[in-house]
Amino acid sequence: MRVVLKNPLDMHLHLRDNEMLQKVAPFSARFFSGALIMPNLVPPVTTKERLLGYKARIADAIGAESFEPYMTLFFKESYDYDFLSDIKNEILAVKLYPAGVTTNSEAGVKGVDIRRLGPVFEAMSDLGIPLCVHGESEGFVMDREAEFIPVYEKLAKSFPKLKIVMEHITTKEAVEALERYENLYATITLHHLYITLDDLAGGLLRPHLFCKPIAKRPEDRMALRRAAFSAHPKVMFGSDSAPHPREKKEAPGCAAGVYTAPVALPALAQLFEEAGVLDNLQKFVSDNAKVVYGVNPPKKEVVLIKEPYRVEREYCGVVPMFAGESLKWRVADVI
Amino acid sequence: MRVVLKNPLDMHLHLRDNEMLQKVAPFSARFFSGALIMPNLVPPVTTKERLLGYKARIADAIGAESFEPYMTLFFKESYDYDFLSDIKNEILAVKLYPAGVTTNSEAGVKGVDIRRLGPVFEAMSDLGIPLCVHGESEGFVMDREAEFIPVYEKLAKSFPKLKIVMEHITTKEAVEALERYENLYATITLHHLYITLDDLAGGLLRPHLFCKPIAKRPEDRMALRRAAFSAHPKVMFGSDSAPHPREKKEAPGCAAGVYTAPVALPALAQLFEEAGVLDNLQKFVSDNAKVVYGVNPPKKEVVLIKEPYRVEREYCGVVPMFAGESLKWRVADVI
Repeated sequence: MRVVLKNPLDMHLHLRDNEMLQKVAPFSARFFSGALIMPNLVPPVTTKERLLGYKARIADAIGAESFEPYMTLFFKESYDYDFLSDIKNEILAVKLYPAGVTTNSEAGVKGVDIRRLGPVFEAMSDLGIPLCVHGESEGFVMDREAEFIPVYEKLAKSFPKLKIVMEHITTKEAVEALERYENLYATITLHHLYITLDDLAGGLLRPHLFCKPIAKRPEDRMALRRAAFSAHPKVMFGSDSAPHPREKKEAPGCAAGVYTAPVALPALAQLFEEAGVLDNLQKFVSDNAKVVYGVNPPKKEVVLIKEPYRVEREYCGVVPMFAGESLKWRVADVI
Repeated sequence: MRVVLKNPLDMHLHLRDNEMLQKVAPFSARFFSGALIMPNLVPPVTTKERLLGYKARIADAIGAESFEPYMTLFFKESYDYDFLSDIKNEILAVKLYPAGVTTNSEAGVKGVDIRRLGPVFEAMSDLGIPLCVHGESEGFVMDREAEFIPVYEKLAKSFPKLKIVMEHITTKEAVEALERYENLYATITLHHLYITLDDLAGGLLRPHLFCKPIAKRPEDRMALRRAAFSAHPKVMFGSDSAPHPREKKEAPGCAAGVYTAPVALPALAQLFEEAGVLDNLQKFVSDNAKVVYGVNPPKKEVVLIKEPYRVEREYCGVVPMFAGESLKWRVADVI
C-alpha cells in the first residue's frame, strides 16, 4: 500500500536557532514543502531585523532543499498599524503567547485583554494577518485550554474578520469551539493524536512525551482524531515539533516538547490508515492549510509505503517520538 | 512555637529489602514509634517464612531504635482460614494489590471479584484482620481511584465486620466514601496533602514527585486536607514513603514513589500550623491509627519546633521530597 502526499505543510514548527537550527531544519525541509516557524527565540522575534536575520539563518540551515519557512512574529501589544503594514509581506502570521505558558514565552502578554490589545488585533484584521494563539490559562494543567476557550470566543466575536488559529489544540472543548465561530481555526499535533496523559504518567514516567499543552483525556483525543480524520476544513496539521537535547529531556526539570518532525508523515499515515481514512490525510497535512492561509508552497511529493520502519534512537542528540520503535509506514521517496 | 507528637505512626511505609532497607529503615525508626510495613517485595511477602525473615531483616536494620514494624501480608486468593489463623499474631493487616497498579504489584489479584475472593475476606473478617487496599482500576490515570470506589463499597457492604483501609487516597470521591460505610477507613500521604498534578507536570517535569496514585486536582487535594486537618477519626497518616535510588528516579521510565519518611513530621507540622490546626496533628499521626488498628506503640516523643530547616539533597542516594528546600519546622528532639 502507498500514498503520495503533495506539498506537505507543518503549520506549527519550532526550529530554534543556531546550532540546534542547523541540526533539525534539514529533517523538516526534507519531508515538508513548508512550515509555519514559531518566533519564541531568546530574544523573541519582534522586529523586522530579527525576523530577516532568523529567516536568513533558516535558509542557511536548509541549504538546497525546496522548503518555504513561513515566518511569524512574536505578538507584542506595542505593534502598530504602520509596523505591521511594513512587515506584512515577510510574515504569514503573528503568534500570541500568554506570558509563561511554555518554553521561551516569558516575553508574552500578561492577560489577553481585548481592550488593551484591541488596536493590534484591529490592525492585523485590517491587514489580513492571521493571529496564532497558544491558548492556555494559568489554571490547573488539565483545565488550561478549556479555560481559555472564552478568550478565543471573545476574540472571534470582537474581530470577525481576523483569522484566529487555536494552536495545538488538545481538548474536545476546543474542537467544539471551531464550530461556533467562522473565523476560528486550529492546528493539531501528531503527538496529541497519539497520546493521552496515560502515556506520560499512567505507567512509568516518560519525559520524552512531556509536552505543553499537556496530553489530555481519552475523550479529548477522540475529539481531536474525529476532527483530523474527517479532514475538517478548519483543522491543519501543525507538529509543534520541539527539539530539546537528550540530556535536557532526561534530567529532572525537563522542558516540555516532543520532537516529531522526522517521523510525522509515516506516523500520520499509519494512524490515518488504521482509521480507514488515508484519503483524508492530504487535506489534513496540506490542502486545508493552503486554503486557510492562502499559500502556494513549493512542489514536493512525499511517497509513503506500508513497510515496517525502525525509528532512529536519536537525531543529532535529539530523541524523537517513537525512538527505537517500529512504525508501519516509511518514506519511500521524496520527489 | 513547638509541638510534641506522642508515638507517631506511619500506617503505610515501604522499607524495601536488603541494601535499601538498611539505608532507609533508620530514618523511619528515628522519628516514628511504628509503621505498617508494605509487603510488595520481590517475591512478595506471602508466607510465614518470608514474613518472619523480612521482620528479622527489618529488626536488624533498625538496630537499637524503639520502633515497631507492624507487618502485612501480600493478599493471595489462596489464603485459607487455617493459614490466616496461624499467621494472625505476626501481622496487623493483609494488603491487596490489583495486579500491575504499582511497583512490584505484578503478583496481585486480577479483578477484585467478591465471589472468587470472598472466602479470604470472610476468614479475615472472622479473625479480625484488617484489609488494606491499593484501590485503583485499570482506567485513565486520573480516574483510576474514583473508578475503584464501587469495589470498596461492595467490599464494605458484603463484609460489614471487615475493617477496610483505602490506602493513600487522593480524591474527593474516596473521602466521601468514608462517610457512607462504617467499616471504611483511609490513609493519606504527606505528598498528596501538598501537591496536585500541577506540581508534577504543570511547569517543568518533576520526576521526584511522580507517584501512584498520581496526584490529582486542586479540589481533590482540598478534600484530603479537610479530612486530615479535621483529624477525621477514620483517617490516618500513611506516608507511602517509597525510596528509589536517585539514578532510577532521574532516568526516563522512572518508577512511581516519593521518599518522605525523613521529612514527614516537620512538613506535616508546617502544613497543619499554616492551616491553624496544629492541635489536630496528634490524632492524624497517631491517635486515630491506635484506635483503628488497636495498637499500643512503643513510647516516643518527637519535639518539633518552628525553626527553618534545610532538607538534605539526598539520604544515602535517595532524593527526599523538598530536597534542598527550606521547611519552617524541624525536629528538635526525640525522647
